[in-house]
Amino acid sequence: MAIDRIIRVDMTTGDVSEARAPEAYALLGGRALTSRMLLEETDARIHPLSEAAKLFIAPGLLAGTAVTTSGRTSFGFKSPLTGGTKEANVGGQLGHRLARLGIKAIVVSGASPDGWKRLDIDGKGARLSGADDLAGRSNYDLHRELVGEALRTRAAATIGPAGEHRMSSASVAVTDPEGRPTRHAARGGPGAVMGAKGLKAIVVDDAEGVRTVPGENAKEFKGEVVKFSKMVLDDPRVHNTSRYGTAGVIKFVNRDNVLSMPTRNHREGSWEHADSISGQVIEELGKERGGKMLPCMAGCIIKCAILYNDEHGEHVTTALEFETIALLGSNLEIGPADAVAELDRLCDDIGLDTIEVGNAIGVAMEAGVLAWGDWEGTKRLLDEDVRGGTPLGRIIGGGTAHVAATYGIDRVPVVKGQGLPAWEPRTLKGMGITYSSSPQGADHTAGMVTARGATPDTLVKQSRQEQLTMMAVDSVGVCQFTNALPGDMAAFISERFGEPLSEDELLTLSREAIETEREFNRRAGFDREDDRLPQWLRDEPLPMPDGPSTFDIEDALIDEVWG
Amino acid sequence: MAIDRIIRVDMTTGDVSEARAPEAYALLGGRALTSRMLLEETDARIHPLSEAAKLFIAPGLLAGTAVTTSGRTSFGFKSPLTGGTKEANVGGQLGHRLARLGIKAIVVSGASPDGWKRLDIDGKGARLSGADDLAGRSNYDLHRELVGEALRTRAAATIGPAGEHRMSSASVAVTDPEGRPTRHAARGGPGAVMGAKGLKAIVVDDAEGVRTVPGENAKEFKGEVVKFSKMVLDDPRVHNTSRYGTAGVIKFVNRDNVLSMPTRNHREGSWEHADSISGQVIEELGKERGGKMLPCMAGCIIKCAILYNDEHGEHVTTALEFETIALLGSNLEIGPADAVAELDRLCDDIGLDTIEVGNAIGVAMEAGVLAWGDWEGTKRLLDEDVRGGTPLGRIIGGGTAHVAATYGIDRVPVVKGQGLPAWEPRTLKGMGITYSSSPQGADHTAGMVTARGATPDTLVKQSRQEQLTMMAVDSVGVCQFTNALPGDMAAFISERFGEPLSEDELLTLSREAIETEREFNRRAGFDREDDRLPQWLRDEPLPMPDGPSTFDIEDALIDEVWG
Repeated sequence: MAIDRIIRVDMTTGDVSEARAPEAYALLGGRALTSRMLLEETDARIHPLSEAAKLFIAPGLLAGTAVTTSGRTSFGFKSPLTGGTKEANVGGQLGHRLARLGIKAIVVSGASPDGWKRLDIDGKGARLSGADDLAGRSNYDLHRELVGEALRTRAAATIGPAGEHRMSSASVAVTDPEGRPTRHAARGGPGAVMGAKGLKAIVVDDAEGVRTVPGENAKEFKGEVVKFSKMVLDDPRVHNTSRYGTAGVIKFVNRDNVLSMPTRNHREGSWEHADSISGQVIEELGKERGGKMLPCMAGCIIKCAILYNDEHGEHVTTALEFETIALLGSNLEIGPADAVAELDRLCDDIGLDTIEVGNAIGVAMEAGVLAWGDWEGTKRLLDEDVRGGTPLGRIIGGGTAHVAATYGIDRVPVVKGQGLPAWEPRTLKGMGITYSSSPQGADHTAGMVTARGATPDTLVKQSRQEQLTMMAVDSVGVCQFTNALPGDMAAFISERFGEPLSEDELLTLSREAIETEREFNRRAGFDREDDRLPQWLRDEPLPMPDGPSTFDIEDALIDEVWG
Repeated sequence: MAIDRIIRVDMTTGDVSEARAPEAYALLGGRALTSRMLLEETDARIHPLSEAAKLFIAPGLLAGTAVTTSGRTSFGFKSPLTGGTKEANVGGQLGHRLARLGIKAIVVSGASPDGWKRLDIDGKGARLSGADDLAGRSNYDLHRELVGEALRTRAAATIGPAGEHRMSSASVAVTDPEGRPTRHAARGGPGAVMGAKGLKAIVVDDAEGVRTVPGENAKEFKGEVVKFSKMVLDDPRVHNTSRYGTAGVIKFVNRDNVLSMPTRNHREGSWEHADSISGQVIEELGKERGGKMLPCMAGCIIKCAILYNDEHGEHVTTALEFETIALLGSNLEIGPADAVAELDRLCDDIGLDTIEVGNAIGVAMEAGVLAWGDWEGTKRLLDEDVRGGTPLGRIIGGGTAHVAATYGIDRVPVVKGQGLPAWEPRTLKGMGITYSSSPQGADHTAGMVTARGATPDTLVKQSRQEQLTMMAVDSVGVCQFTNALPGDMAAFISERFGEPLSEDELLTLSREAIETEREFNRRAGFDREDDRLPQWLRDEPLPMPDGPSTFDIEDALIDEVWG
């Protein structure tokens, strides 16, 4: 079955049209597709929030199929946070639904001249209509209304108040299998771009779509699906993720020979109260309160999403991730888990990237705007200021570098303007190589390299390899926690489309896609100097058992990643 | 007489030292010197507000002499506003005093670990001391205390609250001949850099300095001085400036075939109430109120500074410049002159670049933060919010692009992050070439090209020539309103230093200095894409009599300015 409809929505005129994807896009999906279309269809020098900007939404190449976790969706745009190319990747129920309606991509252009709009897509087509009744509303409320009880056929992608305010840390919330807005295309400000277009919500109903997209070589494809699921379930790394979610790593990264638990605006790498926010503690609390591990989309067999209830058994959040816990927890010296879970819910509700906002508040604490560990103050900051769009809220919502510029703070944890993930580049130097050289800015999902003790040359090679693998992962649309390798993905694509694709050919496609992103950045004015970590990560050491550790990979080696 | 002392102040250790300037700096002064030292002594990638950043202060090559207007001073630094090289040039009493003490440059490095400091320089040397008693105080109050009645020997350079808040639009205020803080090294945030170092004030007393610095060829130099003064006084352009100040151009630029009076965040080029803020009206008011035209430094024969009194004859401000009137007046739809004069005084008192802040408030008005023409609101914004460092005040103080990022506004009047001067690049396209290609960002003083009707090629040549001339002007330290030509300046340098320098050699030095600034920017990550006006100036036309006019000079031509 061909998934080749490209829906185009011109917010300026209100026109909605549709066309077949060109043949050249046949083997492009997800990130590879959105990055390619961004480069081809927009001038890299436009303002990211201007009418000339576009938002590209594309499920991966395997979307709609029975491949586990394959419903991930890419949001591509010029980032108001970095000023460069951006792909924000999200799980949830959106990707499969789009694919099952045969939709390869949605392209939103222009800007509504007359108030807020919603886009409804189902078996009958795509329709744009007024949505001023949705204005000002937050994500939990929105998804309850837009998806309601239709959990088996509907998914929404919405912006909360942060996106309406066009904040650079605004996310797009995507419905999870329980109908909640807990999955976010978060990084780089997709919510701001959607907000600038005047698009409050996209609602997709695939009741009239196919049930499952088959492979062209149906039998072989099915064989690959079964083999892959077995591989995933047999992987001990997955067992850990399935039990504790990503929060399972906290015990490990907080140790004094890893120091990857950012504390006090990345000043330390270990927090004395880290136990109070660890995956193990969360598991224990869950046993008492009816917590459980859930899939973020139908068909996922990993189930890393922590459903977190409060002490009365009431739902608080379903995406208490390691990054969220680290940036909104230890980095701000906030705990225990209950406190962080509430902040996470607020971010989901308002529509915010937790990594960016955690970094932003860390810098605000450094500036003395509020005290380290001030949970009540942080809640107010999110719930009142950011939600309400007060001046202080807009400062925070503008992201990490924005807060630093506002308060004249020189210790800014960003690369290419994007806030640093928890994985610490001074001790896990391969992460620093990825943060520096990825066209996406500081992004741990761009290529995880957590090896320690390897030579710089080896780390450069690993970072390149992982970045190419992650480009493939984000383009076929599976979850990185499957630990899918290029060979696995090449096999899937071969059987899905009925044309043999080797592992090398897949990696060549990945390399081309990375170059597409780098070319956009070049046109937007980026050069080698943008492929750098901030200087303070080279100057301020973390105390490792074998001596103080800074990020000390030479610039020339960073430049070798992409040659 | 050799002016070759370089005073170095390490704010971290409190050390003050001094050394002879190297021979290589012999013919470098003012901007050429600060830009060169910035490149040689700092890593272009440091944060502009970090301890590793430096602030360079240097009078021009002719400082201390009898050459009219020759006491201008350069403040060089990495700009927190643009992220690139920056020279902010200022008149007032500072430059001559430094030169008469034999001081070629002051270099401030490090950052005070223990509160605010002041630097006192006189015939006995330079001393750093605690100044917590000055903290929080504004410029009028400060200069009254620091200079007091010693008008003939003292000058101060201070930061107001904006600099203490490390705002990117913060200026350094320099004493005028009446002891007031009305001359500002304003552009690009020198006040923020000084604030980040913990240096609240520099006080220079030249009572024990020489009276006038002579030329090596004393007689020939004196001859050049007399000839130059006569040339300046005979120039009809100077007559206009001496009578109306820079405000004299308003009647001209507001016309429908110039459209260079920015209105409503540069949306229009002519304001219906421009008469109420024109130089002619200000002259009339001055006659009734005891207004007068003053020199900004002793020995200036042009006297372009408008002393502006209120209706009771009380002093309001002494630097009501065209740029200030345009950006804080028509651009915000604020008038009449009394209203703008009060805003100007507030900016001088708080320590703010009026061009940057006028643009910033224009964008804030576009975002709906306050209404067009809301003078009371604008006063409150400056006097309470910016002065007090409230969140809203910090948003405004962060500058034009910062306000735009905060509110998600895509119509941002900046080049290289710096707010657009009044001179309109869509109708005076040569100005657009200068704004684009100057290493300083949008800066009208970097090279005025107001010719209309010339071909793009001619405008490129004129911009290059004017930029080289202005580099020379800013390096010898005279005022641009003398209309000094390279030949005049080469003659002065030859007789001042007793070694012949041709006009071509002077222009070669200028070219080298421009390349020095461009090299710093390159190292800081700038490339050709930074040499561009914002896209909306190419898209949004102004209505000229012969048809709509946009900025339409091709990128390739812009790149030809520096080849």
